[in-house]
Amino acid sequence: MTTIVPPSVPSATLDHQFSLQNLPYGIFSTADIKPTVGIAIGDFVIHLAAIQDLLLNEVEGLTAEDITSSTLNSLMSKTSTTWKSLRACLTKSLSGSAFPTSSLVPLSSVTMHMPAKIGDYTDFYSSREHATNVGIMFRGVDNALQPNWLHLPVGYHGRASSVFLSGTDVVRPRGQLQKDKVDPKQGSVHGPCKLMDFELEMAFFVGGPPSPPAQPVAMEEAEDRIFGLVLMNDWSARDIQKWEYVPLGPFGAKNFATTISPWVVSLQALEPYRAETSAGPVQKDPEPLDYIKDPTYSSYDISLAVHIQGEGMSAPATVSTSNFKNLYWNVKQQLVHHSVTGCNMQPGDLLGSGTISGSDETSYGSMLELCWKGTKEVKLGETGEIRKFLRDGDNVVMTGECKGKEGVGAVGFGTVEGKVLKAGSKLVKGEGEGVWKEAA
Amino acid sequence: MTTIVPPSVPSATLDHQFSLQNLPYGIFSTADIKPTVGIAIGDFVIHLAAIQDLLLNEVEGLTAEDITSSTLNSLMSKTSTTWKSLRACLTKSLSGSAFPTSSLVPLSSVTMHMPAKIGDYTDFYSSREHATNVGIMFRGVDNALQPNWLHLPVGYHGRASSVFLSGTDVVRPRGQLQKDKVDPKQGSVHGPCKLMDFELEMAFFVGGPPSPPAQPVAMEEAEDRIFGLVLMNDWSARDIQKWEYVPLGPFGAKNFATTISPWVVSLQALEPYRAETSAGPVQKDPEPLDYIKDPTYSSYDISLAVHIQGEGMSAPATVSTSNFKNLYWNVKQQLVHHSVTGCNMQPGDLLGSGTISGSDETSYGSMLELCWKGTKEVKLGETGEIRKFLRDGDNVVMTGECKGKEGVGAVGFGTVEGKVLKAGSKLVKGEGEGVWKEAA
Repeated sequence: MTTIVPPSVPSATLDHQFSLQNLPYGIFSTADIKPTVGIAIGDFVIHLAAIQDLLLNEVEGLTAEDITSSTLNSLMSKTSTTWKSLRACLTKSLSGSAFPTSSLVPLSSVTMHMPAKIGDYTDFYSSREHATNVGIMFRGVDNALQPNWLHLPVGYHGRASSVFLSGTDVVRPRGQLQKDKVDPKQGSVHGPCKLMDFELEMAFFVGGPPSPPAQPVAMEEAEDRIFGLVLMNDWSARDIQKWEYVPLGPFGAKNFATTISPWVVSLQALEPYRAETSAGPVQKDPEPLDYIKDPTYSSYDISLAVHIQGEGMSAPATVSTSNFKNLYWNVKQQLVHHSVTGCNMQPGDLLGSGTISGSDETSYGSMLELCWKGTKEVKLGETGEIRKFLRDGDNVVMTGECKGKEGVGAVGFGTVEGKVLKAGSKLVKGEGEGVWKEAA
Repeated sequence: MTTIVPPSVPSATLDHQFSLQNLPYGIFSTADIKPTVGIAIGDFVIHLAAIQDLLLNEVEGLTAEDITSSTLNSLMSKTSTTWKSLRACLTKSLSGSAFPTSSLVPLSSVTMHMPAKIGDYTDFYSSREHATNVGIMFRGVDNALQPNWLHLPVGYHGRASSVFLSGTDVVRPRGQLQKDKVDPKQGSVHGPCKLMDFELEMAFFVGGPPSPPAQPVAMEEAEDRIFGLVLMNDWSARDIQKWEYVPLGPFGAKNFATTISPWVVSLQALEPYRAETSAGPVQKDPEPLDYIKDPTYSSYDISLAVHIQGEGMSAPATVSTSNFKNLYWNVKQQLVHHSVTGCNMQPGDLLGSGTISGSDETSYGSMLELCWKGTKEVKLGETGEIRKFLRDGDNVVMTGECKGKEGVGAVGFGTVEGKVLKAGSKLVKGEGEGVWKEAA
């Protein structure tokens, strides 16, 4: 772990979200630089192509393509040995006095792009509190958790094409809604979603060489197959979801938009923030089956928050504070289970955590839970504004950070944010690849 | 429609599956030709790059990339006007006496490859008979069809990376199975799937320029956004599925393998085989909502069959004969509903039909239905062999064909086939892209 401020980048203080401990990967561009690989440090981005001689010389297995492409897929397809070596090389260079500062680009001047071309996107459902809350609301207390939930990380395949970058405006979807609130036999109507929601999630990118079919990822190799994490908002249309989801799961209620933050934080950066077993939900009753048992079961202590800024508000109000360590199933278990039947995992696949709720009402990760299915009002701070579900014009901002401790630098994820537009709004491509904005 | 045998390709008789009426697209290679675009005619493949001067001159909107790439994605991204013009140009040229026969490559000498890089893969559940059968088995007669089923084409997102090409061997998956047949509270065990199954399906590739998010495909444009159809086997592990699928749908029970046939048949080829409204299930009770109502509701009359050849058998035995027109929801309705909430549809997306069962027991499209959840034996012809679910070594072959009528040429889909290998078998890349074979 790194505890120093790099001499060439004094802005990268220990409490800066992009301290020397972090070194997150992203795809950036400027007026002069086409989309390419960067690493954030303090108030700057390191333009890796500008120091490729240094990196290619010192980092085993690294190719020019890995650090000069317009996506991270090539770098993701390398082994964890290469990622670790790249990190070590940069850490060493930044810790010395001879770092080539000409490679530093001010963060304020960059446009961010989708970090990777996502092959397949999967979303898990790994918070016991969230699954229990939703279960109580939809099936009652006695059947809240389905019988399989404590035995495997329940998950489902999502839509890769509708994973967009932070900053994307999200148009309130129209779809099929059950006509009568109580009686499904009365059929459905077509109209705008009335129960628009966010889901506070994190997601990880799969890394390493592609695995062939019929070759499950073993627990002992799982950590080496995780490239890094981002924040994710899994936008959800609850009324559409309620009507459509039986028996094959959510579909149109989710596939209109999912947004992720632009900086990918490696597990190496998170290592000092590993949350011990006792900090997370303990897997004892039942114990997981052998293939999915994690002998070093742990997660990461990442503080998460959701803020909403309505149209008339001068600043966002916090509606939820949660933590990544609240998850019952960890990232290794998710990856191992995903491949247990032989699913071939590819670098650039994105695996979401599911909504991250804690045990406390203030830590619920969706409006569905915060307003308890519309039975409670959610106050937006002291603004006088209240919500049940999201309104048009609401900007939803999610943040994630490991705050520095014992001299270890902070590790921040930046934000994932997006504004709800009224149904029928049109979108056009934004400045960054993967960003869509309201048409003028 | 075309009713003649092309003078330069006498093998393309009216009853040949690749008659002049068909002209299906595929990606082929030979010892001398790298993977590239071809069109099947009789016992030959037209190497489009070899006649690109002719095609680029006569077909508006066509680019060299469309007909020389190693996938069909570029061609798929063009408009239906271009596809129709390409078909018209080839039909005209083949109907004359001056077709450049040097572009013809014998089918017997080619290796086939995945027709497209699939961006996203979705599977529907559009056979009323199949959904009813499965519903009866799992929830009883009274709750067989969920309340939403007659109102929308139920579907779910699948895994694109595990869609492979016909010829791929399929390893029996290991996964989590409910320990006790009846009581889910006893938890689960890890082991090989015992209820290995196929699903007889067809699937279509989305075409046309990518649609932006928040812009649903309207019914009147749907047909122009469908590039063509293939046969599909949606391999399924029924015992794994039963345990895992609540509440978010099938996951590991499906994502180990889905296989498709290599030739993509256009809607233009199928036009003479349009099945009139009266031939298919009529959508009257209830009527579909306006957005999904198809004013020219119809499907296509495609005869389908499933054959199994066990290890000791000298020939395959037919276990099911069905028809594509059995589907309740048609391809246009599937596409329109997929995008209703704003999901951005991309050329190269693959949308599966769901298992295609008819009303008659001989037309059921899965072993689950044929053996009625293990309560009946399925005879493999007169071989003396019986099955409930699939055994290791079983080769499953699906075929699809519009048999010629009134002088119109036949339109065949070739086959999608694959052999079940015992759990734990290893796979290596086969000769064609997207084909995996048992390791020696």
